[in-house]
Amino acid sequence: MDLQKPYVIGVDLGGTNTVFGIVDARGQIVAENSVKTQAYTTAQDFFDACMMCLTPLIAQVGGIDRIAGMGIGAPNANYYAGTIEAAPNICWAHNVNVPLAQMFSDALDGIPVRMTNDANAAAMGEMAYGAARGMKNFIVITLGTGVGSGIVINGQVVYGHDGFAGELGHVIMVRGENGRACGCGRKGCLEAYCSATGVARTAREILSTTDRPSLLRNKTADQLEALDVSIAASKGDEVANEIFQFTGKMLGEACADFAAFSSPEAFIFFGGLCKAGDLIMKPIEATYNQCVMPVFKGKAKFLVSSLMNANAAVLGASALGWGE
Amino acid sequence: MDLQKPYVIGVDLGGTNTVFGIVDARGQIVAENSVKTQAYTTAQDFFDACMMCLTPLIAQVGGIDRIAGMGIGAPNANYYAGTIEAAPNICWAHNVNVPLAQMFSDALDGIPVRMTNDANAAAMGEMAYGAARGMKNFIVITLGTGVGSGIVINGQVVYGHDGFAGELGHVIMVRGENGRACGCGRKGCLEAYCSATGVARTAREILSTTDRPSLLRNKTADQLEALDVSIAASKGDEVANEIFQFTGKMLGEACADFAAFSSPEAFIFFGGLCKAGDLIMKPIEATYNQCVMPVFKGKAKFLVSSLMNANAAVLGASALGWGE
Repeated sequence: MDLQKPYVIGVDLGGTNTVFGIVDARGQIVAENSVKTQAYTTAQDFFDACMMCLTPLIAQVGGIDRIAGMGIGAPNANYYAGTIEAAPNICWAHNVNVPLAQMFSDALDGIPVRMTNDANAAAMGEMAYGAARGMKNFIVITLGTGVGSGIVINGQVVYGHDGFAGELGHVIMVRGENGRACGCGRKGCLEAYCSATGVARTAREILSTTDRPSLLRNKTADQLEALDVSIAASKGDEVANEIFQFTGKMLGEACADFAAFSSPEAFIFFGGLCKAGDLIMKPIEATYNQCVMPVFKGKAKFLVSSLMNANAAVLGASALGWGE
Repeated sequence: MDLQKPYVIGVDLGGTNTVFGIVDARGQIVAENSVKTQAYTTAQDFFDACMMCLTPLIAQVGGIDRIAGMGIGAPNANYYAGTIEAAPNICWAHNVNVPLAQMFSDALDGIPVRMTNDANAAAMGEMAYGAARGMKNFIVITLGTGVGSGIVINGQVVYGHDGFAGELGHVIMVRGENGRACGCGRKGCLEAYCSATGVARTAREILSTTDRPSLLRNKTADQLEALDVSIAASKGDEVANEIFQFTGKMLGEACADFAAFSSPEAFIFFGGLCKAGDLIMKPIEATYNQCVMPVFKGKAKFLVSSLMNANAAVLGASALGWGE
């Protein structure tokens, strides 16, 4: 680390808020602010608002000369190009490629600016400040609205030929017409089963096929959310536990296939579902060790992210700012 | 390249023969010899025979000072440790770990010796001399007695945390009890469908469910081999083509999952089945582009190895000798 440049900027560009943090080498956020992502109709207007927000933060830590680099976690981010490409959920990036990395670098005295998707940023964050410190080979799986992943091999995030590698939420777990419809337009993806909406759907399916009593029946099927399953499972609800068994089995089987690919030291899980702790982690690990090729049995660690507090996304993105 | 050391040694350590080749930078084998792998009861006896075989080859190119390094392709090879670990098919390595890389290095004036499995060696060979020259992200899939793979990301073969990564023949394609039994002891692996024995089994299954005439009926079910399917398909046999469609679909679906992992520039296929050319490659590519996530559609190349002549395994292993 350049001692003259003890800070990086982390940016969590989400559908609602874009959060800026100035982060030090220990992963402490020393200054923070945000703008509304979709309060602007053009990328330029959004960018101008970002600079208005960011400039005083930079001044607070002694100016741009004190900043080693900037990392941005954003949907539909192309790492190689530094662009947001036709992001369906961001109004100023619907049908255009926005060269956001270059725009920030130009405005910030040419500091290096790197951009990638949220899950890859999470992997960088775990490696820099979190559960993967000291690891060279691991996979972060984010269980949220979708299922994302950040794959690290030989200490490097895997971006692939085109910058879009690491979409493990979209490996096919149930082939053919019986696979659940996924948001990506295909059927049977891991995400269709193990995202928050996937878990809620599993809950509705299991509840509809049994008369067993369950705390989950206190809500209508439409209202059921993954969080309700977590709460019920933590109270010992049998049906809720069965939902977690099903979800964990699917994740464990998927991880067994991922081991055949990159044989990671650890699988690190991030997101709301992980708050259920052992209730979800035990079924994942048990299924993995039951399913995986003999040569890999018992070798991989199954960990919950240690960056699950507020601002994990800012921290993760900031890790990109330190460079390789 | 060190101009004083214009050669590497490539070793293809197989169940029957162990072939040594001295290889130049253009991938020409300038000297070659072999020993019987299993004519020896101990690793030391095998090693001594290897040195007897190798010494005159080295003398032929001007001595060990002219050799940059040595690469060995071997079953159950651990890249990190340089050992063959409990190889079930090699009599002198059944229950022991044989530190073959160190043994050769010690006997050869300390030149670097690296060892990996056949498929990883094939990937190195494609990158050094073959279809992947200039590529940084690609996957080699070997279709032989088994299905193996060598994954290259950022120009490096993926070995994973323990040295055993890249076992794509053992991702699960058919989950549950309906999956075909695989040699690895599990069910539904890609290898159980797309290896030579897998293709022969598909042939038997399809033939038994139809009365359609086929050249494949000229042999008894027991005698049918993958090569018969290739020959029949090349003559326009409908049933044989259906077998290739089935096999190609399975491989195309698997590659679509692999793209979600590492988004390679190319999939390179190696082995007897590829000699059928378009008859197998077209169904693979068509299925891939139909199945893969939209962001990857139409991007990947599907290539047949350009090292399918004799000694591809020696060439592949030799590429390890040049170092990273």
